[in-house]
Amino acid sequence: MKKKFNIAVVGLGQVGLYLLNELKNKRKNLELITGKKINVVAISAKNIKKKRKFKINKKIFFSNPLDIFKKTKVDILFEAIGLSNGISKKVVEAALKNKIHVITPNKALISKHGDLLAKLAEQNKVNLQFEASVAGGIPILKSIKEGLASNKISKVYGILNGTTNYILSEMENTNESFERVLKKAQKLGYAEPGNPKLDLNGFDAFAKVRILSALAFNNKISKHKCIMEGIENIDLKDIKIANQLNLRIKLLGISEIINNQLFETVHPCMVSNNSYIGNVSGVMNAVITQGKPVGESILQGEGAGPGPTSSSLLSDLVSILRGNSNNPFGTPSSLRKKLKPFNSNNYTNSLYLRFEVKDKSGVLSMITNRLAKYNISIKRIIQTPDKLNKKATIVIITHKTSEINSKNCLSIFKKNKNILKFPTLIRLYN
Amino acid sequence: MKKKFNIAVVGLGQVGLYLLNELKNKRKNLELITGKKINVVAISAKNIKKKRKFKINKKIFFSNPLDIFKKTKVDILFEAIGLSNGISKKVVEAALKNKIHVITPNKALISKHGDLLAKLAEQNKVNLQFEASVAGGIPILKSIKEGLASNKISKVYGILNGTTNYILSEMENTNESFERVLKKAQKLGYAEPGNPKLDLNGFDAFAKVRILSALAFNNKISKHKCIMEGIENIDLKDIKIANQLNLRIKLLGISEIINNQLFETVHPCMVSNNSYIGNVSGVMNAVITQGKPVGESILQGEGAGPGPTSSSLLSDLVSILRGNSNNPFGTPSSLRKKLKPFNSNNYTNSLYLRFEVKDKSGVLSMITNRLAKYNISIKRIIQTPDKLNKKATIVIITHKTSEINSKNCLSIFKKNKNILKFPTLIRLYN
Repeated sequence: MKKKFNIAVVGLGQVGLYLLNELKNKRKNLELITGKKINVVAISAKNIKKKRKFKINKKIFFSNPLDIFKKTKVDILFEAIGLSNGISKKVVEAALKNKIHVITPNKALISKHGDLLAKLAEQNKVNLQFEASVAGGIPILKSIKEGLASNKISKVYGILNGTTNYILSEMENTNESFERVLKKAQKLGYAEPGNPKLDLNGFDAFAKVRILSALAFNNKISKHKCIMEGIENIDLKDIKIANQLNLRIKLLGISEIINNQLFETVHPCMVSNNSYIGNVSGVMNAVITQGKPVGESILQGEGAGPGPTSSSLLSDLVSILRGNSNNPFGTPSSLRKKLKPFNSNNYTNSLYLRFEVKDKSGVLSMITNRLAKYNISIKRIIQTPDKLNKKATIVIITHKTSEINSKNCLSIFKKNKNILKFPTLIRLYN
Repeated sequence: MKKKFNIAVVGLGQVGLYLLNELKNKRKNLELITGKKINVVAISAKNIKKKRKFKINKKIFFSNPLDIFKKTKVDILFEAIGLSNGISKKVVEAALKNKIHVITPNKALISKHGDLLAKLAEQNKVNLQFEASVAGGIPILKSIKEGLASNKISKVYGILNGTTNYILSEMENTNESFERVLKKAQKLGYAEPGNPKLDLNGFDAFAKVRILSALAFNNKISKHKCIMEGIENIDLKDIKIANQLNLRIKLLGISEIINNQLFETVHPCMVSNNSYIGNVSGVMNAVITQGKPVGESILQGEGAGPGPTSSSLLSDLVSILRGNSNNPFGTPSSLRKKLKPFNSNNYTNSLYLRFEVKDKSGVLSMITNRLAKYNISIKRIIQTPDKLNKKATIVIITHKTSEINSKNCLSIFKKNKNILKFPTLIRLYN
């Protein structure tokens, strides 16, 4: 077997640059644990002149990453550009076609084009590895693909986005508004300064859910429309009320088999503040797997940042250097199934509903009557008057009801002069 | 590469039998995810006639497992006999010498003869895999060897024995004595009916600590004498007092690099009942890894029972079928180091000390004077009189002090007529 491996690193942002430095510092150690030598022969980024934290070797710099394949012999390519389309996809495709192993932390790319790229990797007998795409430094993909390989997994869920988890924890701890805490997160480098939208609206967590489902349930990456909600509408008020109820709000990603159908979702959840998941705070990620015969497994670790990401990228490198050839999704592409989607209208939960209403008699009974009409039974009700402004806050915790039922039930409150804004709905975790 | 693999299962106790059944049930799935066929060609146990939960194929039964190698072509052998010496060692050695891959859950064997057997496996170019030997179904060894491979790990610790964790949890929940709960654990199959000693005295957890250190720190399995204490002396009284102090007693296994030296230990610890580790209860295991750059990772799952064990055994099988050849401890045997031991006399902790004394004036000051003489400063003191019996319980929480210092300090209380029994010492987790 080959003893020396040439490496290219494409994309020199926070992650790519950190990785490059790690490759330099860990070279000897990597040789020790794998018996193979590595040599970085090509790097690429948009701008050679950009000021960077570590010095780069300009002799091996390519402005156009696609030129690398023409001019240098590369065995393993790290793609750290990001985004699902455009140059990152082109580079990965070109590399695989040139029989070059690819390692990437790019969840957008894998969750969109993973099936196509996996097929390409298999055809060209090279590895496509993406441990860093889900839950940062936590080796969750390897655990599902290898450590839990023989189990029948029925559910994978958890906290998959460090940025939003940080924001929710920080709002609770400091009593500051969403906007203020978001700015703090951006300052600390947790949320992207330009466009934090993909973290906040649940898209980032959702991409990870799709990758997890593909691995856990041996299915092609799903394309179904699902419930995807982020934390942009979480109000400090809800966090405080949750606290009074011994609950805590977490953005959960969930992938589950219900009646042999696949259900995937990302939405904020109220969880018990005594529960394990309720106590995963800050930038931590946690993934919980339910399988037979292993039972419930939990993996927790830092979910964001160049350090944890780099740890996963290098673990993929180690497995390639050791000659461990794996199909990108464990099972060969040709044998992966297409699971039918579970109709999300039938997804059922207890609900937290917060109504902001005019403080007038009859309003509460109007709400409870409406709920009764849709057979949504009430578990708990808390009314807090705001005499000064002649308003009141009504919080209702319901028993379980389906998505479609609650949607229909609540629709009437869109235009009702006594309801000051459309009620806030947060699902309770089952 | 080979397409068909012949398998032998040696030892048909709880684990071996469950595994045999799983191999039958999961055959198709294993073929799907690995592309290889498996065939069980030999089984062995002491007694062919023993009544078993699942029917065994008597045509492939061997009374003497060593006969298997003479009469059948085997590619992969599962050793599920247990114990570190005797027949289990002989079978594993013979298999490796015959170029047969070996998979075992036998922590006693690996923690004692792992280095020797690893060398043998490497010489014969076969795998020796033992994921199931530590923390049941949790893929902790693969995570350290692969998922966290490039990290510099500084500490691995956790709850590594499900039986003792169950007993401690159950004592707290039911207020029943150690002896009563032990009987319950035996009835439920958590503790061995005949000889639960190796679980209770910390030996089982300690064997796992040694395996974890070897993997995490790339060192030969250590043989140093260490602090190994079990839970046999944990009194319900201590559990209750811990509770009042918002603490909880857990049996922790710890492996750590201190001043470039290896420190390994197993002992009961008082941990905060708000901490993560304080809330891992029942038969659950949890392993916490601290590494750079990944930060802190937690893996939690069921640590005992044939289901989780079988999950890990099959994950080892999958990696062999996929052709992933690994050195048993990641790094080749010849390159593994011998770490110097950290002197456990210098191990420092805050201490929980419980004195049972005669209720006489001067006793408390005698104790505090003695502590002062050894510079052990007191953080908290709780004296509870038992007027009826003219006795008192004095609980002292100290600031940090070294093992040797506390040992010398407490020695005097061995023979003191006012001290009714030698004080109970439980370390607080740092």
